[in-house]
Amino acid sequence: MAKRAEDLSEFAQFASRLADAARAETLPRFRAGARADNKSKAAFDPVTDADREAERALRRLIRESFPAHGVIGEEFGEENAGAEWRWVIDPVDGTRAFCCGAPSWATLIALERKGAPVIGVIDQPFTGERWTGWGGASAHQRGAERRACRVSGARRLAEARVSTTDPRAGGYFTGEEAEAFLRLTHAARLARFSLDAYAYGLLALGEIDLVAEASLKRHDYAALVPVIEGAGGVITGWEGEPLGQDPRGRVLAAASPALHAEAVAFLSR
Amino acid sequence: MAKRAEDLSEFAQFASRLADAARAETLPRFRAGARADNKSKAAFDPVTDADREAERALRRLIRESFPAHGVIGEEFGEENAGAEWRWVIDPVDGTRAFCCGAPSWATLIALERKGAPVIGVIDQPFTGERWTGWGGASAHQRGAERRACRVSGARRLAEARVSTTDPRAGGYFTGEEAEAFLRLTHAARLARFSLDAYAYGLLALGEIDLVAEASLKRHDYAALVPVIEGAGGVITGWEGEPLGQDPRGRVLAAASPALHAEAVAFLSR
Repeated sequence: MAKRAEDLSEFAQFASRLADAARAETLPRFRAGARADNKSKAAFDPVTDADREAERALRRLIRESFPAHGVIGEEFGEENAGAEWRWVIDPVDGTRAFCCGAPSWATLIALERKGAPVIGVIDQPFTGERWTGWGGASAHQRGAERRACRVSGARRLAEARVSTTDPRAGGYFTGEEAEAFLRLTHAARLARFSLDAYAYGLLALGEIDLVAEASLKRHDYAALVPVIEGAGGVITGWEGEPLGQDPRGRVLAAASPALHAEAVAFLSR
Repeated sequence: MAKRAEDLSEFAQFASRLADAARAETLPRFRAGARADNKSKAAFDPVTDADREAERALRRLIRESFPAHGVIGEEFGEENAGAEWRWVIDPVDGTRAFCCGAPSWATLIALERKGAPVIGVIDQPFTGERWTGWGGASAHQRGAERRACRVSGARRLAEARVSTTDPRAGGYFTGEEAEAFLRLTHAARLARFSLDAYAYGLLALGEIDLVAEASLKRHDYAALVPVIEGAGGVITGWEGEPLGQDPRGRVLAAASPALHAEAVAFLSR
């Protein structure tokens, strides 16, 4: 019953088709909201529309091509629960960025086998960038340009460029988490915020060295794992445990095992 | 001696040529740093190189075309001090974003007449976006697409999307400023960070409603003024005073006079 390794290539191509289908629903709605919003405040929500229509399109494609596969998405729950292969989709990760016209939101698509993510896609339609990870490697594509991803390998927090989407307490972070992350930014070389899933893409490209977040759900991080690991990075919970064990949804991604270990120690202080 | 209004059109075209020239120096160095950095840490600084080479290229072009004009830039000081027309340039605004591979840095070009910015350009080479403001209007260009800019017109803080580059104390903000801005984010609809000059471009597009920053220098904000005002927005210091009077470099830009007034009152509490 087990799929052979080479079948992943077929699934990875299909994941790219899914990302294309999502683009067709999300991109026309991006930066189209404010004007319409002024006319009719209640009736128009471009993010929700983009989310729903993209998730519908993706589910339709998966049902047609792989009717036995499971699907779980942000908007419409789970189909075929218990299937060996499961698609985990988040059509618009970074709703707030989408609402602000900032191109850091992304479509996230993962394929899990028996609960482990084996393919991950991070797609940013406005910049035209797509990260794909599977089979121990990751690639970054933009138009005709394609290159293998490789993390920076930075080993020390003092030289690291660190990121989280929202550093404030009371959002994704508890007060304690916000304080720990703030201390971490002061020990690091520099900090950037509000990058959503795009930050993990930049980590895979060697441009950011550490990302720490909390309150992430499976559809927020499943797609990140093959991209980060395929680029040579490390991604776990804040205590170094495998993802999925922590009900607080705390995710820590780093450009080297040494930096990862330093951050685990730092955040647990 | 005074230039006629129609001459501004010639200068605006020239400002676009300057932005093109800056792109040629900055874009090839963007996301090219990390790999080289691993080999030779001390010898390679793509941001400084991009900054310096772009500023050199711009100064050369200005000297050739308008030898009587003044120039002031981040790297090489002032030329022709006291000239009626002065170019104010910042080849890479958002150094930290540039270092992280995040496409929120921008080239900023302003033309001042007798100290007042009359043309402003915000150029983001990676996304291929350019905002140009002059003569009471602003436009956004991306490839062949061009549209007039118009702020959202949002009138209340409670519905506003607000932004600042770094919300932490001890960076651009004093402890007091950081606290005031944090309170403001909690009163607003949502907050995004780390967008640099790109945030003002999004404000001009109606996608962000309020931006507040501190520690900005003339070359950080001169180009923003014609873009924001040309889109129907308001841009002043935190107390509503004209820009340039506050040695703390506090800048407040808003999508409507009502929202601006509410933010002035809020930040002075």
